[in-house]
Amino acid sequence: MELRSYSKAELTAFYDECKAAYADYQAQGLKLDMSRGKPSPAQLDLSAGLLDCLKNEDLKGEAGDYRNYGLLDGIPEAKRLFAQMVAVEPDEVFLFGNASLQAMYMCIAKAFSHGLMGHTPWGQLEKVKFLCPVPGYDRHFRITEYFGVEMINIPTDENGPDMDLVEEYVQNDPAVKGIWCVPQYSNPSGIVYSDEVVKRFAALKPAAPDFRIFWDNAYCIHHLCDDPKVILPILSEARKQGNEDMVYIFASTAKVTYAGAGVSLLAASKANLADMTQALTCFTISFDKVNQMRHVKFFDGKFENVAAHMEKQRELLEPKFAVVLDTLAREIRPLGIGEWTEPKGGYFVSFNAPAGCAKRIVALCKEAGVVLTGAGAAFPYGKDPEDRNIRIAPSYPSEEELQKAMDLFVLCVKLAAAEQLLNV
Amino acid sequence: MELRSYSKAELTAFYDECKAAYADYQAQGLKLDMSRGKPSPAQLDLSAGLLDCLKNEDLKGEAGDYRNYGLLDGIPEAKRLFAQMVAVEPDEVFLFGNASLQAMYMCIAKAFSHGLMGHTPWGQLEKVKFLCPVPGYDRHFRITEYFGVEMINIPTDENGPDMDLVEEYVQNDPAVKGIWCVPQYSNPSGIVYSDEVVKRFAALKPAAPDFRIFWDNAYCIHHLCDDPKVILPILSEARKQGNEDMVYIFASTAKVTYAGAGVSLLAASKANLADMTQALTCFTISFDKVNQMRHVKFFDGKFENVAAHMEKQRELLEPKFAVVLDTLAREIRPLGIGEWTEPKGGYFVSFNAPAGCAKRIVALCKEAGVVLTGAGAAFPYGKDPEDRNIRIAPSYPSEEELQKAMDLFVLCVKLAAAEQLLNV
Repeated sequence: MELRSYSKAELTAFYDECKAAYADYQAQGLKLDMSRGKPSPAQLDLSAGLLDCLKNEDLKGEAGDYRNYGLLDGIPEAKRLFAQMVAVEPDEVFLFGNASLQAMYMCIAKAFSHGLMGHTPWGQLEKVKFLCPVPGYDRHFRITEYFGVEMINIPTDENGPDMDLVEEYVQNDPAVKGIWCVPQYSNPSGIVYSDEVVKRFAALKPAAPDFRIFWDNAYCIHHLCDDPKVILPILSEARKQGNEDMVYIFASTAKVTYAGAGVSLLAASKANLADMTQALTCFTISFDKVNQMRHVKFFDGKFENVAAHMEKQRELLEPKFAVVLDTLAREIRPLGIGEWTEPKGGYFVSFNAPAGCAKRIVALCKEAGVVLTGAGAAFPYGKDPEDRNIRIAPSYPSEEELQKAMDLFVLCVKLAAAEQLLNV
Repeated sequence: MELRSYSKAELTAFYDECKAAYADYQAQGLKLDMSRGKPSPAQLDLSAGLLDCLKNEDLKGEAGDYRNYGLLDGIPEAKRLFAQMVAVEPDEVFLFGNASLQAMYMCIAKAFSHGLMGHTPWGQLEKVKFLCPVPGYDRHFRITEYFGVEMINIPTDENGPDMDLVEEYVQNDPAVKGIWCVPQYSNPSGIVYSDEVVKRFAALKPAAPDFRIFWDNAYCIHHLCDDPKVILPILSEARKQGNEDMVYIFASTAKVTYAGAGVSLLAASKANLADMTQALTCFTISFDKVNQMRHVKFFDGKFENVAAHMEKQRELLEPKFAVVLDTLAREIRPLGIGEWTEPKGGYFVSFNAPAGCAKRIVALCKEAGVVLTGAGAAFPYGKDPEDRNIRIAPSYPSEEELQKAMDLFVLCVKLAAAEQLLNV
């Protein structure tokens, strides 16, 4: 029976039961962190081979001595390998350091200080707006907030952002300069953009000539299923529409090898790469080519080995997603006090509590020792207009810890829902 | 006898002789690059131990799992190690990625977009000026040129920049927001700032409250002599004067371990680090902590091992500097057609040709197959007002190649000087 159909007496009994159970949890002194999508130690152990796969002679590569200065845009061996990850050509790849966030930041910072491809620097404009499909990634929103961008929430469904709304904004408002997208296994909803959505993105006719799609393909090969659905390649789709300069693609090995010590990339048209190079040539002499080559050697230069490595990641992650989804299905579904996604890949489950309950649930969990991502974090300015969304990150804790954390979580959902219905 | 004292006939004979010798060189088809201060392969081989010194268990460090996200400002083990390199406390260190240039760029970009410590963003000011001691480092000047800064040449002597002039600009003109310094073995002159110069820097009373000294201590431990003179520690000197927020110190292991894959740092007051962290927390989740720990292990956490490693670098570099200096002393000094520095460390010899000859010499070398740093590169906007300065970078070629290159170089100096005197 759904919780809202409970009689007052039943609801009061339910509430008292939950309160007693919660007190027990508080007494246990749990200390678990599910706040970020961090790989677990076992996942990181999968890449231990990185630490000694590289011999001195390997660093004499196709394009010179990779220990030395030079090769701003990266080594050809790694470009070839990682171009396949995002379905572009090697000469459409610019390799960065250990974090794709740095690449995104540089693109936006460059747009603000110097403009993109000869257009007016955004910093000289009255107003710059970004579309933000929600729920989305808090660190995207943090960059645009830092630069004073007005962020506009765009609702999403299982196919991607509301493209009617996206087209309306992008094609009519020249202040709309960009949109943040995580097209494959969105953070946190786990959705995969449908072919139609990708094609509508590719066919946009922006009012702003320097409008850019920030296509953060962070989870492009992070499948948790057989026969995964993979998004259409945005750069070639955009090219078909004469829009190849409209897209920046970002990706990294942060959740393939080491979260803090992988290789990241910007993929874009040659004109875009040349434009960004104007800033990057002042920014650095080169990124870490030794680490690029380390990755090439670890995967023996073959993308099939990268894919095989991701299967091992899947083996570690899948049971954890099962813990989350099973617990929610068992404890929450019958009560009708929450909805959630069942992602086929990526790092998160996006949970929607009854409106007005998310902050309370996160607070209750925290008081009992389980730290979740802050409620609202998946929205620009940290403001979830309905106070519903909670991002669940199952990757880091062990299955045992995760089960404990999820048991507490569903209890807190029940407690918060009962409090709301009882008006206590 | 000095060349200018030659009779017309002697000079003509000298010129003809040089021309014939030059034609011989052209026929040899040399192909040497002395354009950048790149370490040689043998120098890079000294750090081969970096490639396998790190075990999986080493990455469980004092402050957590260094393979994962987090620790934006770097790992404590590496902060302790590298703080000693620039004579600051570990909590005054923020570790960056593989290139200190990125740290410098971020400081200037932050000043332009958001301002420093609450002051007006430089991008909103009519005019921003930087003082540039010359000759200096071209990549410094490139950053400030990119941001539209007006760069002002400051002459230097063997003690450092002309401090009367520096004080006059800094203390009277609020548009002067910064100065580029390489205080220990300046690039390219090799000079070491005297104690008096450092103290005068520390005691500056800038007209601009957000004036910063960009103290690029790139060669702080790159000695080529016994008992090296080491600069006074600028941060503690500035603190004595109540000026601790006036200094950004930069350094890296680019010329200690791998040129393209070392660890870099910004050292500054805690207030400055907190201010920069506002930008850096949007820029990245963390820098490459695995590489930081790799360096800690390679040096066994001991700064004395870093110093011992630099002695090995010295053994490789010293004979190359000797080739340059001996050739200049033998071939140029008697003719009085050039002056140069005799550095006790660093990466360069700064050569001053007769005024108006530098471009010609570089062009002559290039036509015969030896690429030097472009004449004027050591000056803002690439403009050497007297067309005299040439940066000689002896590190990369083998001694044999270097001798060939220097033989050609001195010949080109003679040829250019003779051309000038003969007016041909």
